[in-house]
Amino acid sequence: MSRNGVFITIEGPDGAGKSTVIEELLKKMSHELKVDVVTTREPGGIPISEKIREVILNPTHTMMDERTEALLYAAARRQHLVEKILPALETNRLVVCDRFIDSSIAYQGAARGIGVEAVRQINDFAIEGNYPDLTLYLDVEASVGLSRINKGRSEAELDRLDKESLDFHERVRSAYLTLLESESNRIKKVDASQSIENVVNTCYNLIKETFPSMFIKSSKG
Amino acid sequence: MSRNGVFITIEGPDGAGKSTVIEELLKKMSHELKVDVVTTREPGGIPISEKIREVILNPTHTMMDERTEALLYAAARRQHLVEKILPALETNRLVVCDRFIDSSIAYQGAARGIGVEAVRQINDFAIEGNYPDLTLYLDVEASVGLSRINKGRSEAELDRLDKESLDFHERVRSAYLTLLESESNRIKKVDASQSIENVVNTCYNLIKETFPSMFIKSSKG
Repeated sequence: MSRNGVFITIEGPDGAGKSTVIEELLKKMSHELKVDVVTTREPGGIPISEKIREVILNPTHTMMDERTEALLYAAARRQHLVEKILPALETNRLVVCDRFIDSSIAYQGAARGIGVEAVRQINDFAIEGNYPDLTLYLDVEASVGLSRINKGRSEAELDRLDKESLDFHERVRSAYLTLLESESNRIKKVDASQSIENVVNTCYNLIKETFPSMFIKSSKG
Repeated sequence: MSRNGVFITIEGPDGAGKSTVIEELLKKMSHELKVDVVTTREPGGIPISEKIREVILNPTHTMMDERTEALLYAAARRQHLVEKILPALETNRLVVCDRFIDSSIAYQGAARGIGVEAVRQINDFAIEGNYPDLTLYLDVEASVGLSRINKGRSEAELDRLDKESLDFHERVRSAYLTLLESESNRIKKVDASQSIENVVNTCYNLIKETFPSMFIKSSKG
């Protein structure tokens, strides 16, 4: 498949504010882009990926092995990529995806202890070279992220990951920071402890600097 | 986990007669073994693996990508290994499994064209070094295997794989023969064009030669 569009992923620990940032960012960009935007997140409404996700999240599946889970995430990612992301990129769209391969490397590979290289390998099988053109990593300290997650939510509302310890979230963040160092061309760090407005502006500027041709030239210029 | 038991897999193209051979082989061995036997095949009654299998075989999932399918097979294999095979091996049992990693390499890797090394990698992630101690490869020509499959079955009864072309089945067999060459210590070829009785006897002798200590000494000796 030919990829003419632009593929951006938003990454970060839980509580980094990804969903809000993506929403605000798209509002801000909406009248300035020459291209159509597709926003998505796994499983992305793809029936096969939704079914795989149901197997992962089924609360009766307490026996699920970590490697089984990692393979299932990779399978759901593959299908979402093939059915939704690649067709959008083929037709010149901007795809903004909430979490992608780096989440698996940080969560399954590093924080759950399977191993970063092993998890990268199965995900490389899944994405077949289709890495994002740009990844915005929303960086926030584990304690800040966790307190944001827990604010105003009842215990019952918290999903399994939210309940994980501070230690787990620190391993996630540390893995992201290592990825950032090793793939500094693709991954850009955004300080997510700032106000939402500032975080959105930083993301906006990074996207505009990296892909100026996607934007309508400002009339102010 | 410590593996004290013996892990045997039975492999071969469709129509090689694996199920019948396993059944007869166990009858023949049942009074001669010092150890308990567990016979299994993926998904092996493991609820998580059964759910994964349902996703793979769901007839509405016509959009399923080959790599998604390969990852799902690897996930189901992992869970079956962890929940059923390894615990049985830990308690000194003989595990006889109908198909395992070599099936994925032959079917997904070679015949479907994903690539043998790529499929081996994701399966190595899944099995984490837990290769069988012995693999009996039931060899049969593609045309013979296919004609056995189709005998007495209605079109509606044939599953997707059975409907694949002769060409596909020839690629499967060729992949098995290549595996046999490269892993001749682990994989032993059995001519499955013989009578069932002869096939069973050949398998029996191979197992007895390889693991004599599992057998009660013959009173004839």
